[in-house]
Amino acid sequence: MDFKEEFNKKTAVVNEALEGFMPSPDAYPPLIHRAMRYSVLGGGKRLRPVLLLAAAEMLGATDRDVMPAACAVELIHTYSLIHDDLPLMDNDDYRRGKLANHKVYGEAVALLAGDALLTLAFLLLTKCRTDRPEDVVRVINEAAAGAGTRGLIGGQVVDTFSVDKEIDTDILEYIHRNKTGSLYRVAVRCGAILAGASEKDLDYLTEYAEYLGLAFQIEDDILDVTGDEKRLGKPVGSDKRNKKATYPALFGLEGSKNKARLAVKKAEEALEPFGSEADFLRLLVEYVINRDF
Amino acid sequence: MDFKEEFNKKTAVVNEALEGFMPSPDAYPPLIHRAMRYSVLGGGKRLRPVLLLAAAEMLGATDRDVMPAACAVELIHTYSLIHDDLPLMDNDDYRRGKLANHKVYGEAVALLAGDALLTLAFLLLTKCRTDRPEDVVRVINEAAAGAGTRGLIGGQVVDTFSVDKEIDTDILEYIHRNKTGSLYRVAVRCGAILAGASEKDLDYLTEYAEYLGLAFQIEDDILDVTGDEKRLGKPVGSDKRNKKATYPALFGLEGSKNKARLAVKKAEEALEPFGSEADFLRLLVEYVINRDF
Repeated sequence: MDFKEEFNKKTAVVNEALEGFMPSPDAYPPLIHRAMRYSVLGGGKRLRPVLLLAAAEMLGATDRDVMPAACAVELIHTYSLIHDDLPLMDNDDYRRGKLANHKVYGEAVALLAGDALLTLAFLLLTKCRTDRPEDVVRVINEAAAGAGTRGLIGGQVVDTFSVDKEIDTDILEYIHRNKTGSLYRVAVRCGAILAGASEKDLDYLTEYAEYLGLAFQIEDDILDVTGDEKRLGKPVGSDKRNKKATYPALFGLEGSKNKARLAVKKAEEALEPFGSEADFLRLLVEYVINRDF
Repeated sequence: MDFKEEFNKKTAVVNEALEGFMPSPDAYPPLIHRAMRYSVLGGGKRLRPVLLLAAAEMLGATDRDVMPAACAVELIHTYSLIHDDLPLMDNDDYRRGKLANHKVYGEAVALLAGDALLTLAFLLLTKCRTDRPEDVVRVINEAAAGAGTRGLIGGQVVDTFSVDKEIDTDILEYIHRNKTGSLYRVAVRCGAILAGASEKDLDYLTEYAEYLGLAFQIEDDILDVTGDEKRLGKPVGSDKRNKKATYPALFGLEGSKNKARLAVKKAEEALEPFGSEADFLRLLVEYVINRDF
Protein backbone atom coordinates (compact mmCIF):
# COMPACT_ATOMS: atom_id res chain seq x y z
CA MET A 1 0.00 0.00 0.00
CA ASP A 2 1.15 3.52 -0.80
CA PHE A 3 0.20 5.02 2.55
CA LYS A 4 0.72 8.61 1.49
CA GLU A 5 -1.55 8.22 -1.53
CA GLU A 6 -4.21 6.41 0.50
CA PHE A 7 -4.09 9.02 3.25
CA ASN A 8 -4.42 11.90 0.79
CA LYS A 9 -7.31 10.15 -0.94
CA LYS A 10 -9.16 9.78 2.36
CA THR A 11 -8.48 13.41 3.30
CA ALA A 12 -9.86 14.51 -0.06
CA VAL A 13 -13.14 12.60 0.33
CA VAL A 14 -13.51 13.95 3.86
CA ASN A 15 -13.00 17.52 2.62
CA GLU A 16 -15.55 17.01 -0.13
CA ALA A 17 -18.08 15.53 2.31
CA LEU A 18 -17.54 18.36 4.81
CA GLU A 19 -18.22 20.90 2.08
CA GLY A 20 -21.45 19.07 1.24
CA PHE A 21 -22.64 18.84 4.85
CA MET A 22 -21.97 22.49 5.73
CA PRO A 23 -24.84 24.97 5.32
CA SER A 24 -24.55 27.27 2.30
CA PRO A 25 -22.77 30.58 3.00
CA ASP A 26 -25.91 32.38 1.77
CA ALA A 27 -28.41 30.50 3.94
CA TYR A 28 -30.11 32.82 6.45
CA PRO A 29 -28.61 34.02 8.73
CA PRO A 30 -25.48 34.10 6.52
CA LEU A 31 -23.05 35.44 9.14
CA ILE A 32 -23.14 32.32 11.31
CA HIS A 33 -22.92 29.96 8.34
CA ARG A 34 -19.90 31.81 6.97
CA ALA A 35 -18.19 31.71 10.35
CA MET A 36 -18.82 27.95 10.62
CA ARG A 37 -17.48 27.33 7.11
CA TYR A 38 -14.42 29.50 7.75
CA SER A 39 -13.13 27.24 10.50
CA VAL A 40 -14.30 23.87 9.18
CA LEU A 41 -13.23 24.26 5.57
CA GLY A 42 -10.00 26.08 6.41
CA GLY A 43 -7.64 23.14 6.41
CA GLY A 44 -6.57 20.71 9.11
CA LYS A 45 -5.06 17.25 8.90
CA ARG A 46 -8.47 15.49 9.19
CA LEU A 47 -6.80 12.80 11.29
CA ARG A 48 -9.95 11.97 13.29
CA PRO A 49 -12.30 11.46 10.33
CA VAL A 50 -9.62 9.50 8.45
CA LEU A 51 -9.24 7.29 11.51
CA LEU A 52 -13.01 6.70 11.63
CA LEU A 53 -13.15 5.82 7.93
CA ALA A 54 -10.17 3.48 8.24
CA ALA A 55 -11.64 1.60 11.23
CA ALA A 56 -15.00 1.23 9.47
CA GLU A 57 -13.48 0.15 6.15
CA MET A 58 -11.22 -2.42 7.73
CA LEU A 59 -14.36 -4.09 9.14
CA GLY A 60 -16.24 -4.00 5.85
CA ALA A 61 -18.30 -0.79 5.92
CA THR A 62 -18.22 1.70 3.06
CA ASP A 63 -17.13 5.34 3.29
CA ARG A 64 -20.54 6.49 2.18
CA ASP A 65 -22.35 4.84 5.10
CA VAL A 66 -20.13 6.24 7.83
CA MET A 67 -19.15 9.59 6.31
CA PRO A 68 -21.66 11.63 8.37
CA ALA A 69 -20.02 10.26 11.54
CA ALA A 70 -16.51 10.97 10.21
CA CYS A 71 -17.48 14.58 9.54
CA ALA A 72 -19.28 14.85 12.90
CA VAL A 73 -16.06 14.03 14.77
CA GLU A 74 -14.22 16.72 12.80
CA LEU A 75 -16.95 19.26 13.67
CA ILE A 76 -16.63 18.44 17.37
CA HIS A 77 -12.85 18.94 17.09
CA THR A 78 -13.32 22.25 15.26
CA TYR A 79 -15.89 23.61 17.73
CA SER A 80 -13.48 22.91 20.58
CA LEU A 81 -10.69 24.81 18.79
CA ILE A 82 -12.92 27.86 18.17
CA HIS A 83 -14.00 28.04 21.83
CA ASP A 84 -10.41 27.37 22.98
CA ASP A 85 -9.06 30.30 21.01
CA LEU A 86 -11.53 32.83 22.50
CA PRO A 87 -9.97 35.59 24.63
CA LEU A 88 -11.79 34.26 27.70
CA MET A 89 -9.94 30.93 27.20
CA ASP A 90 -6.47 30.71 25.57
CA ASN A 91 -6.75 34.01 23.68
CA ASP A 92 -5.02 32.77 20.54
CA ASP A 93 -5.12 34.98 17.44
CA TYR A 94 -4.09 32.30 14.96
CA ARG A 95 -5.17 28.75 14.21
CA ARG A 96 -3.98 26.49 11.40
CA GLY A 97 -1.96 29.41 9.99
CA LYS A 98 -5.02 31.67 9.63
CA LEU A 99 -6.67 34.23 11.89
CA ALA A 100 -8.76 32.60 14.63
CA ASN A 101 -12.52 32.63 14.10
CA HIS A 102 -13.19 35.43 16.60
CA LYS A 103 -10.52 37.64 14.98
CA VAL A 104 -12.52 37.51 11.74
CA TYR A 105 -16.15 37.28 12.90
CA GLY A 106 -16.02 38.72 16.42
CA GLU A 107 -16.36 36.91 19.73
CA ALA A 108 -20.17 36.61 19.80
CA VAL A 109 -20.35 34.97 16.38
CA ALA A 110 -17.37 32.73 17.15
CA LEU A 111 -19.06 31.53 20.34
CA LEU A 112 -22.28 30.76 18.46
CA ALA A 113 -20.41 29.19 15.51
CA GLY A 114 -18.78 26.78 17.97
CA ASP A 115 -22.16 25.99 19.54
CA ALA A 116 -23.64 25.47 16.08
CA LEU A 117 -20.87 23.08 14.97
CA LEU A 118 -21.31 20.94 18.10
CA THR A 119 -25.06 20.85 17.42
CA LEU A 120 -24.58 20.07 13.73
CA ALA A 121 -22.25 17.21 14.67
CA PHE A 122 -25.14 15.45 16.45
CA LEU A 123 -27.46 16.16 13.53
CA LEU A 124 -24.93 14.51 11.18
CA LEU A 125 -24.61 11.47 13.43
CA THR A 126 -28.33 10.77 12.92
CA LYS A 127 -27.64 10.48 9.18
CA CYS A 128 -25.37 7.43 9.27
CA ARG A 129 -26.68 4.68 7.04
CA THR A 130 -27.23 1.34 8.67
CA ASP A 131 -29.94 -1.31 9.04
CA ARG A 132 -29.41 -1.14 12.80
CA PRO A 133 -30.72 2.17 14.21
CA GLU A 134 -29.67 0.95 17.67
CA ASP A 135 -26.06 1.23 16.47
CA VAL A 136 -26.64 4.87 15.53
CA VAL A 137 -28.03 5.52 19.02
CA ARG A 138 -24.96 3.85 20.51
CA VAL A 139 -22.61 5.91 18.35
CA ILE A 140 -24.34 9.13 19.44
CA ASN A 141 -24.02 8.01 23.05
CA GLU A 142 -20.28 7.36 22.60
CA ALA A 143 -19.71 10.68 20.85
CA ALA A 144 -21.57 12.64 23.54
CA ALA A 145 -19.71 10.82 26.32
CA GLY A 146 -16.33 11.37 24.65
CA ALA A 147 -17.02 15.06 24.01
CA GLY A 148 -18.35 15.70 27.53
CA THR A 149 -16.91 16.32 30.98
CA ARG A 150 -15.57 12.79 31.19
CA GLY A 151 -13.78 13.30 27.89
CA LEU A 152 -12.85 16.34 25.80
CA ILE A 153 -14.35 19.03 28.06
CA GLY A 154 -12.95 17.39 31.21
CA GLY A 155 -9.45 17.52 29.68
CA GLN A 156 -10.02 21.11 28.66
CA VAL A 157 -11.09 22.19 32.15
CA VAL A 158 -8.11 20.57 33.86
CA ASP A 159 -5.73 21.94 31.22
CA THR A 160 -7.08 25.50 31.63
CA PHE A 161 -6.72 25.41 35.39
CA SER A 162 -3.29 23.77 35.37
CA VAL A 163 -1.59 26.72 33.69
CA ASP A 164 1.13 28.16 35.90
CA LYS A 165 0.80 25.32 38.40
CA GLU A 166 3.10 22.46 39.30
CA ILE A 167 1.39 19.39 37.93
CA ASP A 168 2.22 15.73 38.28
CA THR A 169 2.26 12.81 35.89
CA ASP A 170 -1.30 11.76 36.76
CA ILE A 171 -2.74 15.13 35.85
CA LEU A 172 -0.67 15.43 32.66
CA GLU A 173 -1.91 12.01 31.59
CA TYR A 174 -5.50 12.90 32.48
CA ILE A 175 -5.30 16.04 30.33
CA HIS A 176 -3.88 14.23 27.32
CA ARG A 177 -6.07 11.15 27.62
CA ASN A 178 -9.14 13.35 27.63
CA LYS A 179 -8.31 16.49 25.68
CA THR A 180 -6.63 14.69 22.79
CA GLY A 181 -7.27 11.01 23.33
CA SER A 182 -11.04 11.00 23.69
CA LEU A 183 -11.83 12.07 20.13
CA TYR A 184 -9.38 9.49 18.75
CA ARG A 185 -11.18 6.88 20.80
CA VAL A 186 -14.59 8.17 19.65
CA ALA A 187 -13.48 8.14 15.99
CA VAL A 188 -12.18 4.58 16.02
CA ARG A 189 -15.02 3.18 18.12
CA CYS A 190 -17.81 4.87 16.16
CA GLY A 191 -16.36 3.70 12.84
CA ALA A 192 -16.08 0.17 14.19
CA ILE A 193 -19.56 0.11 15.78
CA LEU A 194 -21.18 1.31 12.55
CA ALA A 195 -19.35 -1.48 10.72
CA GLY A 196 -20.84 -4.04 13.13
CA ALA A 197 -17.63 -4.79 15.07
CA SER A 198 -17.60 -7.52 17.71
CA GLU A 199 -17.02 -6.35 21.29
CA LYS A 200 -13.61 -8.04 21.18
CA ASP A 201 -12.51 -6.16 18.07
CA LEU A 202 -13.86 -2.99 19.65
CA ASP A 203 -11.60 -3.56 22.66
CA TYR A 204 -8.50 -4.05 20.50
CA LEU A 205 -9.27 -0.96 18.45
CA THR A 206 -9.96 1.13 21.54
CA GLU A 207 -6.53 0.23 22.90
CA TYR A 208 -4.99 1.11 19.55
CA ALA A 209 -6.72 4.51 19.57
CA GLU A 210 -5.59 5.31 23.08
CA TYR A 211 -1.93 4.60 22.38
CA LEU A 212 -2.11 6.37 19.03
CA GLY A 213 -3.48 9.47 20.76
CA LEU A 214 -0.80 9.26 23.43
CA ALA A 215 1.99 8.91 20.85
CA PHE A 216 0.60 11.88 18.92
CA GLN A 217 0.42 14.07 22.02
CA ILE A 218 3.92 13.24 23.27
CA GLU A 219 5.31 13.93 19.79
CA ASP A 220 3.41 17.25 19.74
CA ASP A 221 5.03 18.23 23.04
CA ILE A 222 8.48 17.20 21.73
CA LEU A 223 8.13 19.15 18.47
CA ASP A 224 7.09 22.22 20.45
CA VAL A 225 10.45 22.06 22.24
CA THR A 226 12.74 20.93 19.40
CA GLY A 227 11.23 23.63 17.27
CA ASP A 228 10.17 21.83 14.13
CA GLU A 229 7.45 24.26 13.10
CA LYS A 230 6.81 22.59 9.75
CA ARG A 231 6.09 19.17 11.19
CA LEU A 232 4.17 20.63 14.14
CA GLY A 233 1.92 22.72 11.90
CA LYS A 234 1.79 25.61 14.36
CA PRO A 235 4.25 28.09 15.93
CA VAL A 236 6.72 26.34 18.24
CA GLY A 237 7.38 27.28 21.86
CA SER A 238 3.72 28.00 22.59
CA ASP A 239 3.54 25.49 25.47
CA LYS A 240 6.34 27.27 27.30
CA ARG A 241 4.86 30.70 26.58
CA ASN A 242 1.46 29.52 27.80
CA LYS A 243 3.09 27.73 30.77
CA LYS A 244 1.42 24.45 29.80
CA ALA A 245 2.40 21.15 31.31
CA THR A 246 4.23 18.93 28.80
CA TYR A 247 5.98 15.58 28.61
CA PRO A 248 9.46 17.11 28.09
CA ALA A 249 8.94 19.35 31.14
CA LEU A 250 8.17 16.32 33.31
CA PHE A 251 10.32 13.59 31.73
CA GLY A 252 13.00 15.43 29.75
CA LEU A 253 13.49 15.12 25.99
CA GLU A 254 15.06 11.65 26.06
CA GLY A 255 12.48 10.34 28.53
CA SER A 256 9.67 11.71 26.36
CA LYS A 257 11.11 10.07 23.23
CA ASN A 258 11.19 6.75 25.08
CA LYS A 259 7.58 7.19 26.13
CA ALA A 260 6.57 7.99 22.55
CA ARG A 261 8.36 4.87 21.27
CA LEU A 262 6.62 2.75 23.90
CA ALA A 263 3.21 4.16 22.95
CA VAL A 264 3.92 3.38 19.27
CA LYS A 265 4.84 -0.19 20.17
CA LYS A 266 1.67 -0.63 22.24
CA ALA A 267 -0.50 0.79 19.44
CA GLU A 268 1.06 -1.68 17.01
CA GLU A 269 0.61 -4.58 19.42
CA ALA A 270 -3.08 -3.76 19.84
CA LEU A 271 -3.51 -4.48 16.10
CA GLU A 272 -1.84 -7.91 16.25
CA PRO A 273 -5.15 -9.85 16.20
CA PHE A 274 -5.87 -8.33 12.77
CA GLY A 275 -4.41 -9.23 9.38
CA SER A 276 -3.44 -7.09 6.43
CA GLU A 277 -6.81 -5.30 6.58
CA ALA A 278 -5.32 -3.27 9.46
CA ASP A 279 -2.26 -2.15 7.47
CA PHE A 280 -3.50 1.40 7.00
CA LEU A 281 -3.98 1.80 10.76
CA ARG A 282 -0.47 0.36 11.30
CA LEU A 283 1.12 2.85 8.93
CA LEU A 284 -0.90 5.67 10.47
CA VAL A 285 1.05 5.22 13.73
CA GLU A 286 4.30 5.96 11.91
CA TYR A 287 2.76 8.95 10.20
CA VAL A 288 1.58 10.43 13.47
CA ILE A 289 5.15 10.27 14.79
CA ASN A 290 7.04 11.29 11.66
CA ARG A 291 4.56 13.71 10.05
CA ASP A 292 6.70 13.80 6.95
CA PHE A 293 4.12 15.16 4.56
CA MET B 1 -58.45 18.58 36.48
CA ASP B 2 -56.70 20.81 39.02
CA PHE B 3 -54.23 22.31 36.56
CA LYS B 4 -52.10 23.98 39.18
CA GLU B 5 -51.67 20.76 41.13
CA GLU B 6 -50.93 18.77 37.96
CA PHE B 7 -48.42 21.38 36.75
CA ASN B 8 -46.59 21.44 40.09
CA LYS B 9 -46.49 17.64 40.17
CA LYS B 10 -44.90 17.55 36.72
CA THR B 11 -42.39 20.25 37.66
CA ALA B 12 -41.44 18.26 40.76
CA VAL B 13 -40.75 15.04 38.83
CA VAL B 14 -38.71 17.00 36.29
CA ASN B 15 -36.63 18.58 39.07
CA GLU B 16 -36.05 15.19 40.64
CA ALA B 17 -35.04 13.65 37.32
CA LEU B 18 -32.68 16.56 36.52
CA GLU B 19 -30.97 16.07 39.87
CA GLY B 20 -30.51 12.38 39.06
CA PHE B 21 -29.14 12.99 35.55
CA MET B 22 -26.62 15.66 36.57
CA PRO B 23 -23.06 14.54 37.39
CA SER B 24 -22.18 14.53 41.09
CA PRO B 25 -20.65 17.80 42.34
CA ASP B 26 -17.62 15.80 43.49
CA ALA B 27 -17.00 13.95 40.21
CA TYR B 28 -13.64 14.93 38.71
CA PRO B 29 -13.15 17.68 37.60
CA PRO B 30 -15.55 19.06 40.26
CA LEU B 31 -15.46 22.70 39.12
CA ILE B 32 -17.27 22.08 35.82
CA HIS B 33 -19.84 19.76 37.40
CA ARG B 34 -20.64 22.33 40.09
CA ALA B 35 -21.03 25.06 37.48
CA MET B 36 -23.40 22.86 35.44
CA ARG B 37 -25.48 22.02 38.51
CA TYR B 38 -25.62 25.66 39.61
CA SER B 39 -27.49 26.73 36.50
CA VAL B 40 -29.59 23.63 35.89
CA LEU B 41 -30.77 23.03 39.45
CA GLY B 42 -31.23 26.70 40.26
CA GLY B 43 -34.91 27.03 39.46
CA GLY B 44 -36.79 27.83 36.29
CA LYS B 45 -40.37 27.19 35.27
CA ARG B 46 -39.52 23.88 33.48
CA LEU B 47 -42.11 24.76 30.83
CA ARG B 48 -40.31 22.89 28.03
CA PRO B 49 -39.89 19.55 29.85
CA VAL B 50 -43.45 19.76 31.22
CA LEU B 51 -44.66 20.32 27.65
CA LEU B 52 -42.74 17.26 26.44
CA LEU B 53 -44.13 15.07 29.24
CA ALA B 54 -47.67 16.31 28.59
CA ALA B 55 -47.51 15.62 24.84
CA ALA B 56 -46.09 12.14 25.45
CA GLU B 57 -48.59 11.27 28.20
CA MET B 58 -51.56 12.40 26.19
CA LEU B 59 -50.56 9.86 23.51
CA GLY B 60 -50.05 7.03 26.00
CA ALA B 61 -46.34 7.08 26.89
CA THR B 62 -45.15 7.10 30.50
CA ASP B 63 -43.06 9.81 32.15
CA ARG B 64 -40.32 7.32 32.86
CA ASP B 65 -39.78 6.43 29.19
CA VAL B 66 -39.49 10.01 27.93
CA MET B 67 -37.93 11.70 30.98
CA PRO B 68 -34.39 11.74 29.53
CA ALA B 69 -35.72 13.70 26.54
CA ALA B 70 -37.67 16.10 28.78
CA CYS B 71 -34.51 16.84 30.76
CA ALA B 72 -32.43 17.12 27.56
CA VAL B 73 -34.64 19.96 26.28
CA GLU B 74 -34.21 21.78 29.60
CA LEU B 75 -30.41 21.36 29.37
CA ILE B 76 -30.40 22.85 25.86
CA HIS B 77 -32.42 25.79 27.16
CA THR B 78 -30.06 26.25 30.12
CA TYR B 79 -26.88 26.09 28.01
CA SER B 80 -28.27 28.82 25.75
CA LEU B 81 -28.99 31.05 28.78
CA ILE B 82 -25.45 30.61 30.17
CA HIS B 83 -23.82 31.49 26.83
CA ASP B 84 -26.30 34.38 26.33
CA ASP B 85 -25.37 35.95 29.65
CA LEU B 86 -21.61 36.00 28.94
CA PRO B 87 -20.03 39.46 28.65
CA LEU B 88 -19.22 38.80 24.99
CA MET B 89 -22.97 38.34 24.35
CA ASP B 90 -25.67 40.12 26.44
CA ASN B 91 -23.43 40.68 29.49
CA ASP B 92 -26.14 39.99 32.07
CA ASP B 93 -25.11 39.62 35.71
CA TYR B 94 -28.31 37.99 36.92
CA ARG B 95 -30.47 35.10 35.75
CA ARG B 96 -33.55 33.64 37.45
CA GLY B 97 -32.91 35.94 40.42
CA LYS B 98 -29.39 34.61 41.05
CA LEU B 99 -25.95 35.63 39.83
CA ALA B 100 -25.27 34.48 36.28
CA ASN B 101 -23.03 31.43 35.90
CA HIS B 102 -19.95 33.41 34.83
CA LYS B 103 -20.30 35.78 37.81
CA VAL B 104 -19.89 32.78 40.12
CA TYR B 105 -17.53 30.46 38.20
CA GLY B 106 -15.74 32.80 35.81
CA GLU B 107 -16.14 33.13 32.07
CA ALA B 108 -14.01 30.16 31.02
CA VAL B 109 -15.88 27.70 33.22
CA ALA B 110 -19.25 29.20 32.23
CA LEU B 111 -18.39 28.74 28.54
CA LEU B 112 -17.38 25.12 29.12
CA ALA B 113 -20.38 24.45 31.39
CA GLY B 114 -22.65 25.59 28.56
CA ASP B 115 -20.79 23.36 26.10
CA ALA B 116 -21.04 20.46 28.53
CA LEU B 117 -24.79 20.87 29.05
CA LEU B 118 -25.43 20.88 25.30
CA THR B 119 -23.32 17.73 25.01
CA LEU B 120 -25.03 16.06 27.97
CA ALA B 121 -28.42 16.83 26.39
CA PHE B 122 -27.54 14.59 23.44
CA LEU B 123 -26.23 11.90 25.76
CA LEU B 124 -29.56 11.94 27.64
CA LEU B 125 -31.54 11.69 24.40
CA THR B 126 -29.86 8.34 23.70
CA LYS B 127 -31.34 7.04 26.97
CA CYS B 128 -35.02 7.29 26.05
CA ARG B 129 -36.78 3.97 26.47
CA THR B 130 -38.58 2.66 23.43
CA ASP B 131 -38.81 -0.50 21.34
CA ARG B 132 -38.16 1.64 18.28
CA PRO B 133 -34.56 2.91 18.24
CA GLU B 134 -35.36 4.62 14.93
CA ASP B 135 -37.66 6.95 16.90
CA VAL B 136 -34.76 7.87 19.20
CA VAL B 137 -32.65 8.69 16.14
CA ARG B 138 -35.47 10.84 14.80
CA VAL B 139 -35.87 12.65 18.11
CA ILE B 140 -32.13 13.42 18.21
CA ASN B 141 -32.37 14.72 14.65
CA GLU B 142 -35.28 17.00 15.58
CA ALA B 143 -33.52 18.28 18.70
CA ALA B 144 -30.29 19.03 16.81
CA ALA B 145 -32.19 20.77 14.02
CA GLY B 146 -34.27 22.83 16.47
CA ALA B 147 -31.20 23.83 18.51
CA GLY B 148 -29.11 24.72 15.44
CA THR B 149 -28.76 27.64 13.04
CA ARG B 150 -32.21 27.00 11.59
CA GLY B 151 -33.67 27.14 15.08
CA LEU B 152 -32.45 28.38 18.46
CA ILE B 153 -28.99 29.58 17.35
CA GLY B 154 -30.38 31.22 14.21
CA GLY B 155 -32.80 33.23 16.36
CA GLN B 156 -29.98 34.12 18.72
CA VAL B 157 -27.74 35.38 15.93
CA VAL B 158 -30.42 37.59 14.39
CA ASP B 159 -31.45 38.88 17.83
CA THR B 160 -27.87 39.79 18.74
CA PHE B 161 -27.31 41.68 15.52
CA SER B 162 -30.69 43.44 15.58
CA VAL B 163 -29.90 45.42 18.73
CA ASP B 164 -30.01 49.15 18.05
CA LYS B 165 -31.38 48.62 14.55
CA GLU B 166 -34.77 49.33 13.02
CA ILE B 167 -36.31 45.96 12.45
CA ASP B 168 -39.50 44.94 10.72
CA THR B 169 -42.25 42.45 11.54
CA ASP B 170 -40.64 39.67 9.50
CA ILE B 171 -37.40 39.84 11.46
CA LEU B 172 -39.16 40.11 14.82
CA GLU B 173 -41.21 37.04 13.98
CA TYR B 174 -38.11 35.18 12.77
CA ILE B 175 -36.36 35.90 16.09
CA HIS B 176 -39.26 34.75 18.23
CA ARG B 177 -40.15 31.73 16.10
CA ASN B 178 -36.57 30.52 16.38
CA LYS B 179 -35.16 31.81 19.66
CA THR B 180 -38.22 30.90 21.74
CA GLY B 181 -40.47 28.85 19.50
CA SER B 182 -38.05 26.19 18.32
CA LEU B 183 -37.56 24.54 21.72
CA TYR B 184 -41.32 24.51 22.34
CA ARG B 185 -41.69 22.79 18.97
CA VAL B 186 -38.87 20.35 19.78
CA ALA B 187 -40.39 19.55 23.20
CA VAL B 188 -43.87 18.79 21.88
CA ARG B 189 -42.68 16.90 18.80
CA CYS B 190 -40.12 14.78 20.63
CA GLY B 191 -42.65 13.81 23.32
CA ALA B 192 -45.16 12.89 20.64
CA ILE B 193 -42.70 10.95 18.46
CA LEU B 194 -41.50 8.89 21.43
CA ALA B 195 -45.15 8.09 22.20
CA GLY B 196 -45.59 6.80 18.63
CA ALA B 197 -47.73 9.69 17.33
CA SER B 198 -49.20 9.53 13.83
CA GLU B 199 -47.91 12.14 11.37
CA LYS B 200 -51.31 13.81 11.47
CA ASP B 201 -51.29 14.18 15.27
CA LEU B 202 -47.72 15.43 14.99
CA ASP B 203 -48.87 18.19 12.64
CA TYR B 204 -51.66 19.31 14.99
CA LEU B 205 -49.31 19.34 17.97
CA THR B 206 -46.63 21.22 16.05
CA GLU B 207 -49.13 23.95 15.24
CA TYR B 208 -50.17 24.05 18.88
CA ALA B 209 -46.54 24.42 20.01
CA GLU B 210 -45.86 27.22 17.55
CA TYR B 211 -48.83 29.32 18.66
CA LEU B 212 -48.14 28.56 22.31
CA GLY B 213 -44.57 29.81 21.89
CA LEU B 214 -45.79 32.91 20.07
CA ALA B 215 -48.37 33.68 22.79
CA PHE B 216 -45.72 33.24 25.46
CA GLN B 217 -43.26 35.54 23.72
CA ILE B 218 -45.79 38.32 23.05
CA GLU B 219 -46.90 38.15 26.69
CA ASP B 220 -43.25 38.33 27.78
CA ASP B 221 -42.77 41.48 25.71
CA ILE B 222 -45.99 42.99 27.16
CA LEU B 223 -45.02 42.23 30.78
CA ASP B 224 -41.63 43.84 30.20
CA VAL B 225 -43.44 47.08 29.32
CA THR B 226 -46.36 46.98 31.79
CA GLY B 227 -43.88 46.23 34.52
CA ASP B 228 -45.26 43.15 36.21
CA GLU B 229 -41.98 41.82 37.57
CA LYS B 230 -43.57 39.04 39.60
CA ARG B 231 -45.37 37.47 36.64
CA LEU B 232 -42.42 38.06 34.29
CA GLY B 233 -39.96 36.38 36.66
CA LYS B 234 -37.15 38.80 35.80
CA PRO B 235 -36.47 42.56 36.08
CA VAL B 236 -38.81 44.59 33.86
CA GLY B 237 -37.71 47.16 31.29
CA SER B 238 -34.70 45.09 30.14
CA ASP B 239 -35.85 45.00 26.49
CA LYS B 240 -35.84 48.78 26.32
CA ARG B 241 -32.50 49.04 28.12
CA ASN B 242 -31.02 46.44 25.77
CA LYS B 243 -32.68 48.10 22.78
CA LYS B 244 -34.33 44.84 21.78
CA ALA B 245 -37.10 44.64 19.22
CA THR B 246 -40.45 43.80 20.84
CA TYR B 247 -44.11 43.40 19.91
CA PRO B 248 -45.23 46.53 21.83
CA ALA B 249 -42.56 48.59 20.05
CA LEU B 250 -43.86 47.48 16.65
CA PHE B 251 -47.60 47.07 17.29
CA GLY B 252 -48.32 49.10 20.45
CA LEU B 253 -49.69 47.63 23.68
CA GLU B 254 -53.27 47.15 22.45
CA GLY B 255 -52.11 45.68 19.14
CA SER B 256 -49.83 43.26 20.99
CA LYS B 257 -52.63 42.15 23.29
CA ASN B 258 -54.77 41.40 20.25
CA LYS B 259 -51.96 39.39 18.72
CA ALA B 260 -51.52 37.42 21.94
CA ARG B 261 -55.26 36.67 22.06
CA LEU B 262 -55.18 35.50 18.45
CA ALA B 263 -52.21 33.19 19.14
CA VAL B 264 -54.06 31.71 22.13
CA LYS B 265 -57.12 31.06 19.98
CA LYS B 266 -55.02 29.39 17.27
CA ALA B 267 -53.22 27.21 19.84
CA GLU B 268 -56.59 26.08 21.22
CA GLU B 269 -57.95 25.41 17.72
CA ALA B 270 -54.95 23.23 16.91
CA LEU B 271 -56.05 20.90 19.73
CA GLU B 272 -59.64 20.53 18.45
CA PRO B 273 -59.05 17.08 16.92
CA PHE B 274 -58.21 15.76 20.40
CA GLY B 275 -60.56 14.92 23.26
CA SER B 276 -60.22 15.38 27.00
CA GLU B 277 -56.75 13.77 26.91
CA ALA B 278 -55.51 17.18 25.64
CA ASP B 279 -57.01 19.14 28.55
CA PHE B 280 -53.68 19.75 30.26
CA LEU B 281 -52.24 21.24 27.05
CA ARG B 282 -55.38 23.41 26.73
CA LEU B 283 -55.03 24.77 30.26
CA LEU B 284 -51.31 25.32 29.70
CA VAL B 285 -52.13 28.02 27.13
CA GLU B 286 -54.03 30.00 29.76
CA TYR B 287 -51.19 29.54 32.22
CA VAL B 288 -48.63 30.86 29.77
CA ILE B 289 -50.69 34.03 29.36
CA ASN B 290 -51.80 34.56 32.95
CA ARG B 291 -48.80 33.16 34.87
CA ASP B 292 -50.79 33.43 38.07
CA PHE B 293 -48.74 31.08 40.19
